Amino acid sequence: MRPSELDLIDAFLAPFGLDRSSSAAPGILSGPGDDCAVVAPSRGLSLVLKTDAVVEGVHFTMPPFSPEDVGHKALAVNLSDLAAAGAEPRWFLCALGVPKTRSAITIAARMARGMARLARRTDCVLVGGNVTRAPGWTLTLFVAGEAKQPRGRTGARPGDAIVVVGKLGAAARGLTDLPRGKRTAAGRAQLRPEPLLQAGLAAGRLPSAAIDVSDGFLRDLGHLCESSRCGAEVDVDALPVARGASLEEALSGGEDYALLFAVRPERLRRLLLRVPSARRIGRFTQGSGIRLLDEGSPRRLPPRLGFDHLA
Amino acid sequence: MRPSELDLIDAFLAPFGLDRSSSAAPGILSGPGDDCAVVAPSRGLSLVLKTDAVVEGVHFTMPPFSPEDVGHKALAVNLSDLAAAGAEPRWFLCALGVPKTRSAITIAARMARGMARLARRTDCVLVGGNVTRAPGWTLTLFVAGEAKQPRGRTGARPGDAIVVVGKLGAAARGLTDLPRGKRTAAGRAQLRPEPLLQAGLAAGRLPSAAIDVSDGFLRDLGHLCESSRCGAEVDVDALPVARGASLEEALSGGEDYALLFAVRPERLRRLLLRVPSARRIGRFTQGSGIRLLDEGSPRRLPPRLGFDHLA
Repeated sequence: MRPSELDLIDAFLAPFGLDRSSSAAPGILSGPGDDCAVVAPSRGLSLVLKTDAVVEGVHFTMPPFSPEDVGHKALAVNLSDLAAAGAEPRWFLCALGVPKTRSAITIAARMARGMARLARRTDCVLVGGNVTRAPGWTLTLFVAGEAKQPRGRTGARPGDAIVVVGKLGAAARGLTDLPRGKRTAAGRAQLRPEPLLQAGLAAGRLPSAAIDVSDGFLRDLGHLCESSRCGAEVDVDALPVARGASLEEALSGGEDYALLFAVRPERLRRLLLRVPSARRIGRFTQGSGIRLLDEGSPRRLPPRLGFDHLA
Repeated sequence: MRPSELDLIDAFLAPFGLDRSSSAAPGILSGPGDDCAVVAPSRGLSLVLKTDAVVEGVHFTMPPFSPEDVGHKALAVNLSDLAAAGAEPRWFLCALGVPKTRSAITIAARMARGMARLARRTDCVLVGGNVTRAPGWTLTLFVAGEAKQPRGRTGARPGDAIVVVGKLGAAARGLTDLPRGKRTAAGRAQLRPEPLLQAGLAAGRLPSAAIDVSDGFLRDLGHLCESSRCGAEVDVDALPVARGASLEEALSGGEDYALLFAVRPERLRRLLLRVPSARRIGRFTQGSGIRLLDEGSPRRLPPRLGFDHLA
């Protein structure tokens, strides 16, 4: 028998401890069983909204991804942007595109399992979603977080330090390791990226601007420079390159979900105390464009700066 | 030359009067140029969140849909749920799946044009989104509205009147008319459904429960009955069947985006005054299940109750 939409929704909700008639929880006036989710935001807080999608054949194939990996990653990539903004995750909706396959319900339930585990750990509550037929599996998530004074891409000034939290290049290296069946840390970084929410919250108002490294370090640094109207100088030898990854993978490989901060010089010491894993890797400059310095000498930019989602 | 992601985003934002460096507007702390949208909700209001997707080959093909129709409809189907909830539209995000095609930018810009026109009319502001490669065009929207006391599917009681606002069956009839090249009102109902926001707001707290008719009248009435744990009796001769549509299309055809209210008998008169296009078409009953009455005599339910998104 063909699975019905409601069967699939029930299977998807179960790992979250929810069903279509789930009664309201504190702060949630209406949950996944209704057409709209209704939430009551706290006073004096800004709501930070994010959507990101993962598409079968574009962002993942199964294998090497398990359905649990896909579910985890779909939420993780959204939470990473909340981490950069310094927002606390609150609620999310999940729009599922479901291909014609007999095992649709089993796969959806397993995706939900990976997603629910991360949602529980990060206190982010599923409040709604949508199911539709699609050519391949597509998970488009909408995440809402709260912050008193969220950080964005604008606000970096010449003289600010460039600070990175997290390792660079692992997820790109994982793309090479996985098809060879190697069970490496890099492979895991590709399958199950960990959003750096704690570091993002701990940094508080110390960064003047922030972005997460999802499209590749140079490309995302470029986005931040463009929005803040300044340039950047990067000390290549200071980059936190992941074990086993090449410098090129660290500079241009996407999906690291590291955090990139601009920090005024007088705030740098406090930031490094609050976020011990943060590394100063350069400085923002007048003008525009990115320059690489290798032990003080200029170095050419790699030909590919990062990931264009339509290239 | 292949279109880049940023070219496509620029083309998509233009019809909204936005670009990637658009400065903040009142209530919007950060818009489409940043990774996260940041909005400041008003005090004392609940936030009503909704996501719905339209997928090429599933919900539309072009033609008969123009890209403008697709953009309009992707927003309209989400706003219809806000209308049922009695929420005022505020902000939305648009996640685009883009197939490999030379004319991607032109098509995206035209979709945005249709969407922007409806967004402007309904005071709903684009604050963010996402672009990814996908097998076909996919528009997954996430809409946030505000309401003091939003309505949901639960709350109908035996004895409440069943009230419909809007016509039934036109969109289903349109599916038949369109491939024949007929330019009918039904065709237009299929291409450019109009979300009944004014009626939704005017009804205020008078309805005890509400749902929009998107999956088919009987199916959506069934959802409402199930959530409210009651049954329903429908006077078939009272149904507002659209001109040219059959009774079967009115009962089971989807995509009408009419509103369905449960209203306590003592509030019915006030509701019909406030929403003159509203029609009483039956009553909620004890127990479960839907019964059709044709001039007082029972009538069989049609074999197909509505649209299952995976069937």
